Amino acid sequence: MTPPITLLTDFGTADGYVGEVKGVLSTLAPHAPLVDISHDLYAQDVEGARLAVARYWRRFPPGTVHLVIVDPGVGTARAALAVASEGRYLVGPDNGVLSPSLFALDARVVRLAEPPAAAPTFHGRDVFAPVAAQLAMGGPLEALGEPHPEPVRRRTPPPVRHGDGTLEGEVLTFDRFGNAVTNLVPARPTPPGTTVVTMGQEIPLVRTYGDVPPGAPLALVGSSGLVEIAVRNGSAASRFGMARGQRVVLTARP
Amino acid sequence: MTPPITLLTDFGTADGYVGEVKGVLSTLAPHAPLVDISHDLYAQDVEGARLAVARYWRRFPPGTVHLVIVDPGVGTARAALAVASEGRYLVGPDNGVLSPSLFALDARVVRLAEPPAAAPTFHGRDVFAPVAAQLAMGGPLEALGEPHPEPVRRRTPPPVRHGDGTLEGEVLTFDRFGNAVTNLVPARPTPPGTTVVTMGQEIPLVRTYGDVPPGAPLALVGSSGLVEIAVRNGSAASRFGMARGQRVVLTARP
Amino acid sequence: MTPPITLLTDFGTADGYVGEVKGVLSTLAPHAPLVDISHDLYAQDVEGARLAVARYWRRFPPGTVHLVIVDPGVGTARAALAVASEGRYLVGPDNGVLSPSLFALDARVVRLAEPPAAAPTFHGRDVFAPVAAQLAMGGPLEALGEPHPEPVRRRTPPPVRHGDGTLEGEVLTFDRFGNAVTNLVPARPTPPGTTVVTMGQEIPLVRTYGDVPPGAPLALVGSSGLVEIAVRNGSAASRFGMARGQRVVLTARP
Repeated sequence: MTPPITLLTDFGTADGYVGEVKGVLSTLAPHAPLVDISHDLYAQDVEGARLAVARYWRRFPPGTVHLVIVDPGVGTARAALAVASEGRYLVGPDNGVLSPSLFALDARVVRLAEPPAAAPTFHGRDVFAPVAAQLAMGGPLEALGEPHPEPVRRRTPPPVRHGDGTLEGEVLTFDRFGNAVTNLVPARPTPPGTTVVTMGQEIPLVRTYGDVPPGAPLALVGSSGLVEIAVRNGSAASRFGMARGQRVVLTARP
Repeated sequence: MTPPITLLTDFGTADGYVGEVKGVLSTLAPHAPLVDISHDLYAQDVEGARLAVARYWRRFPPGTVHLVIVDPGVGTARAALAVASEGRYLVGPDNGVLSPSLFALDARVVRLAEPPAAAPTFHGRDVFAPVAAQLAMGGPLEALGEPHPEPVRRRTPPPVRHGDGTLEGEVLTFDRFGNAVTNLVPARPTPPGTTVVTMGQEIPLVRTYGDVPPGAPLALVGSSGLVEIAVRNGSAASRFGMARGQRVVLTARP
Repeated sequence: MTPPITLLTDFGTADGYVGEVKGVLSTLAPHAPLVDISHDLYAQDVEGARLAVARYWRRFPPGTVHLVIVDPGVGTARAALAVASEGRYLVGPDNGVLSPSLFALDARVVRLAEPPAAAPTFHGRDVFAPVAAQLAMGGPLEALGEPHPEPVRRRTPPPVRHGDGTLEGEVLTFDRFGNAVTNLVPARPTPPGTTVVTMGQEIPLVRTYGDVPPGAPLALVGSSGLVEIAVRNGSAASRFGMARGQRVVLTARP
């Protein structure tokens, strides 16, 4: 069985660009199931793409090829990469979007050769898709280019632990419900009475949405283990007017 | 052949949540085609999800597994369900979204056990997706949990027939063209001169858009057999400022 | 192997319409991979659909069936078509959306019979999807209907070459980054100093985004060979307030 090829892009779907990429994949890897992750990332949001890749890349079975095309530097000198890591493959630009796979001990990275006929504005179709198809068909990584020892690797910034036991972090991004995802990782189990302070609000850390009344703010440990700030049946982003980088402080009261 | 697994969620696609669910499915049911219905339902719109499920669940072949994750009560005491009905399977929360399948005579419903490690905010990934994969792989429904005899069942409210022959109903929802879908089911064939009155407008019931000039309002029997109110080449929702629950009256004039 | 069926519609995905179409396809062509191109075209945007189809239809392997449902005339006298062209099949309304396939020398076109029970507002489900499934299963085109010798064929308007060597064209459409796609096809290689004049701006034609500073306007030859007007890390559509049909002039300065 040919393994799946997943697609994460910021192309949107109001024109035929995603179709062009899928056509190339269908032609070169006809048996590979094509799995859409999203084409609706904010345009050129490299950090949003990195955080999304972190969520899903290891959930797919070994052999899966993850195509990640969020590429504001297309056509410039930035490298085009293919990565093998923990049995999965990732293909995309060297701008940090592939970072979650690059910290594994067994990660191998090659810099892709750029075909002379590649359109300088559409490496997704002309550089990345053909390589993803080759990997899905079982082609070896090393045949695709030279080793690339220093890929761009971005990390979620770690929170700072203060002497008084508080943990200071920041808002990384927002999900579509308006929940603010932070970089705070609390001790488990979290002591009762733990709160998150941000923008002058003191917000209780609870287990689930049902623990506060509708319309009330809450903090909880999200499905990635990170603290999220939410409003039950509402949006924390619009209620508090928070932005990425907003300071948040976790306090466990005795 | 492994039957398809369909996905209907309100997750949006601007982060990696849908990808996580698809990764679990690809790992546990590697041969099942994954078919996106939508991830763009209005957040937490249980009623919209129910109406969408009613449209498509029986159009897919027997064996299909429909995953429906619109779940404002995630992490609370609401049950997680798997249903077998008319040869198809449905998996989702016990809040009414699965209702269209629950009125069949042969419907069987079980309450899913919640794995201890399930993230309280992401049952889609940790509870529903693994069960959908098991069903697609041929696992029996009864192995998944205890029978659940009283699932939440919501119905489209029936219209009221008045003594003067008029039929009084309401707007259920809007489609993306701004058409208002009502709960009115007219007699077939509809007598000429039939109109729908709403918001002070008397709108002719016609067969198709081409029966009125561009820009004119019209009512027609939609593809589900329900009366819809539309504006040719326009939006009834924005023209008339209608909302869900708006009263509509069907009148057959002699 | 059953070839893929691709789907391009303007249905949006907030209700179950796309699901209904996919259910019909899954039932009648159970082994055909379903490949989403987009369901988010602007409602009833026939011209946008035509330009999208031009991008992708030939990128897919022979045998592929392209379903294109952007159909403001549904239920009127407009014909429903199936096309065989360069080894691919296309199914959709006779309003120009299938044009890119209709200029091939080997193009064959039939007018589909309309099943009596077809909902007059949903030919996507009741007319086009069953035919797409039949073609994917290997059914012959000629069995589907009578030859249709004069389908609607739309062409991108050609630019006008003036005596002074300038090339005058127009904006065809915008992509999701706000880039304006024009009908200008420059000589290759383009002489240095070539510019595009529009809305009182003189914009340099460069090779890639990196050739101008962030925030600066640029013109470049897009991945289809057409000149596009863009703003680096910005939107030409919102910066210049351009609309479809806006006049653009390409000038090669000596």
